[in-house]
Amino acid sequence: MHTRTMYFQDYEIGTGRESFGRTITETDFVVHAGHTGDFFPHHMDAEFCKAQEFGQRIAHGTMVFAIGVGLTAHEINPVAFSYGYERLRFVRPVHIGDTIRSRTTIVRKEDDPRRLDRGRVFEKLEVLNQHDQVVLAAEHIYLVEKKEQQ
Amino acid sequence: MHTRTMYFQDYEIGTGRESFGRTITETDFVVHAGHTGDFFPHHMDAEFCKAQEFGQRIAHGTMVFAIGVGLTAHEINPVAFSYGYERLRFVRPVHIGDTIRSRTTIVRKEDDPRRLDRGRVFEKLEVLNQHDQVVLAAEHIYLVEKKEQQ
Amino acid sequence: MHTRTMYFQDYEIGTGRESFGRTITETDFVVHAGHTGDFFPHHMDAEFCKAQEFGQRIAHGTMVFAIGVGLTAHEINPVAFSYGYERLRFVRPVHIGDTIRSRTTIVRKEDDPRRLDRGRVFEKLEVLNQHDQVVLAAEHIYLVEKKEQQ
Amino acid sequence: MHTRTMYFQDYEIGTGRESFGRTITETDFVVHAGHTGDFFPHHMDAEFCKAQEFGQRIAHGTMVFAIGVGLTAHEINPVAFSYGYERLRFVRPVHIGDTIRSRTTIVRKEDDPRRLDRGRVFEKLEVLNQHDQVVLAAEHIYLVEKKEQQ
Amino acid sequence: MHTRTMYFQDYEIGTGRESFGRTITETDFVVHAGHTGDFFPHHMDAEFCKAQEFGQRIAHGTMVFAIGVGLTAHEINPVAFSYGYERLRFVRPVHIGDTIRSRTTIVRKEDDPRRLDRGRVFEKLEVLNQHDQVVLAAEHIYLVEKKEQQ
Amino acid sequence: MHTRTMYFQDYEIGTGRESFGRTITETDFVVHAGHTGDFFPHHMDAEFCKAQEFGQRIAHGTMVFAIGVGLTAHEINPVAFSYGYERLRFVRPVHIGDTIRSRTTIVRKEDDPRRLDRGRVFEKLEVLNQHDQVVLAAEHIYLVEKKEQQ
Repeated sequence: MHTRTMYFQDYEIGTGRESFGRTITETDFVVHAGHTGDFFPHHMDAEFCKAQEFGQRIAHGTMVFAIGVGLTAHEINPVAFSYGYERLRFVRPVHIGDTIRSRTTIVRKEDDPRRLDRGRVFEKLEVLNQHDQVVLAAEHIYLVEKKEQQ
Repeated sequence: MHTRTMYFQDYEIGTGRESFGRTITETDFVVHAGHTGDFFPHHMDAEFCKAQEFGQRIAHGTMVFAIGVGLTAHEINPVAFSYGYERLRFVRPVHIGDTIRSRTTIVRKEDDPRRLDRGRVFEKLEVLNQHDQVVLAAEHIYLVEKKEQQ
Repeated sequence: MHTRTMYFQDYEIGTGRESFGRTITETDFVVHAGHTGDFFPHHMDAEFCKAQEFGQRIAHGTMVFAIGVGLTAHEINPVAFSYGYERLRFVRPVHIGDTIRSRTTIVRKEDDPRRLDRGRVFEKLEVLNQHDQVVLAAEHIYLVEKKEQQ
Repeated sequence: MHTRTMYFQDYEIGTGRESFGRTITETDFVVHAGHTGDFFPHHMDAEFCKAQEFGQRIAHGTMVFAIGVGLTAHEINPVAFSYGYERLRFVRPVHIGDTIRSRTTIVRKEDDPRRLDRGRVFEKLEVLNQHDQVVLAAEHIYLVEKKEQQ
Repeated sequence: MHTRTMYFQDYEIGTGRESFGRTITETDFVVHAGHTGDFFPHHMDAEFCKAQEFGQRIAHGTMVFAIGVGLTAHEINPVAFSYGYERLRFVRPVHIGDTIRSRTTIVRKEDDPRRLDRGRVFEKLEVLNQHDQVVLAAEHIYLVEKKEQQ
Repeated sequence: MHTRTMYFQDYEIGTGRESFGRTITETDFVVHAGHTGDFFPHHMDAEFCKAQEFGQRIAHGTMVFAIGVGLTAHEINPVAFSYGYERLRFVRPVHIGDTIRSRTTIVRKEDDPRRLDRGRVFEKLEVLNQHDQVVLAAEHIYLVEKKEQQ
């Protein structure tokens, strides 16, 4: 974790980064259920899941999202602010023992409709499993200050 | 938590629900940092935060989202599947000691472009604090089976 | 979780409910030991347990009780108060990987010896495993307000 | 934690022990809710509690019981088995910041109705707060082997 | 856990103690990573570890140390203070499922160079696995009050 | 977290790094006690601590060490291995609400007595509080491969 100041002009379309991997454990399932209060049997009841489509417990979508985002938390940009996410999609299930990693790519930039001194940077987030399959995708929107033009 | 089968046709625009409240504690901050690996000083360093805009630690956006969604996890609909989210926005900061609750409203329904036997149901999610201010908003998309027409 | 007001007169002997299931994980063992400070080798030392009667780690009785009770926490009755438990029995061991669920049944009602305006409702709690065997039993005593008679 | 073999004959009525203290924290509330799935607002919603009898969050009864029992987990007796509890009572509320400790006293012994080679030992458990008030009481029943008589 | 007052003079070289065992679980790995913020793939990424020397995840050294020390926390000596550690060595890796225990031995005593009324007691700590192999070693230094000489 | 290969020759005496800060919370105290099993009243009993030297709970030494080390876990060097620590000292108490950060400095290098192809690098670790006081100090020993000389 370190600080790097990047203005709107500094972001280049197509650049990106891939995180280290992290094995999703049964512990993560239990922690996320307890943290959020969502004890749905799809996540917590191995017997129930035997009769379901995937035959085993599936990770909470919010957990894959939160850990996937957390894997990218490496750099603090003091002139960027997280505005929100678009197109968050749960593409494939994540099971106990899967290893996920996150890939981010700058895909689009646009002026902010309300403020001249900043713009919007769109960063694609893809969470991948150990088979290189996308399990979750989303688009992260940052509000980023513009460097003053001289 | 209970099971209730609701087909596409059963969802009515404008209906909704409000959850119980939950006070967001320093513990939740620490648990979420440890769960996701995001130890950014904005969430974890009270000294650093004194010099920032809000003067105190602010909750991870992914935590407000995950707990906000968890507060709505009351009913299992076996014919509905979570497809994803749109327009996820971090509207206001959540601080240690704030009490949040979730309000959901069915706002839109449309046919699925790819499958005749199901449709998309859009549920607005608003997470509110103890001052009735929206702190997070999103639109949850469900894929829901259609009741067979006779 | 929702609110439903039920007076003493509203409880009917023989009615009850069965919860969703929850798989008890090694994580739950570790969390409960850390939460309570009870690190007895019967719960925490797989090597020690190989030489014991059951050949594997057994769940803390207080954990099966706390989770078993938690599985029934679905409905808030504002006119009922938990008074205590009788006949709490650890009937069979729970091991890592077992899936438990809770069944509650109203079994008895009696006037409160000290206050005319409320009575005692006895609810039998049975925690069952995936083989439908009772692993824990207890009787929960509620103090419940009486509806005013006209 | 150590091992000490005590047969039925070795228990003396009136003997007992008092544990170290432990301050019950907001963390314990959050951990217990997450561990058991019981997120009732009485334990988790500080705003809701302001309008209730005690004006603040109250600890889960199952947590006071589990931690109270855990505080006594100091000695392994290989010839004693926990059979269950009687008269578990939630006497006073426990709030965030209270410091509890446990006092145990051997109060009764009786032959086991079904097996000649063991008896029942009844140990009173009292959980006290920092004002020396009993907050929880129960009677723990042990099945203990008898020393062979010569 | 109990209190026992032991002055500098009371410690005898060669005396010691061996703790109960504790199985190190995947949960402990996840808890320690989340507690410390160290998510290095050597501890957290099972796929990465397949290609490494040991073929599987290895415990954080700080975790083996912290749990190893914790296993010895049985007795409070009000006249002894922990001063620090020397020669902390990570001798062998600890993997998920290993069962560790701690052995402590008083190995040396010396006067405190700065204060006449206390001395230094050196206690060797060895953490062993289920194969009786030392996995971690260290020397714990206590500052201990001297009994007044008459 | 990223990978950077640094051989023995690449380390320069006097270079170093300072981490971000992290506020030590009551949650960390409770998590560490539960993780290690050390529930000594010095860490867990606020009432007991009122009568002690510092008047309040003090952090486990092993926690300050583990978190202090964790704060430095930013860079993976594939040719360096952690050998152990010397001179670990608990210099000042850490209390709930203190904010700590870690400073590391390369202080010494020497050949490995047993293997020609690697050397020992000594890195000083200092954990500082919000008043810039050292609370913990230690010397971390790395075994680092030597670049082949041509």
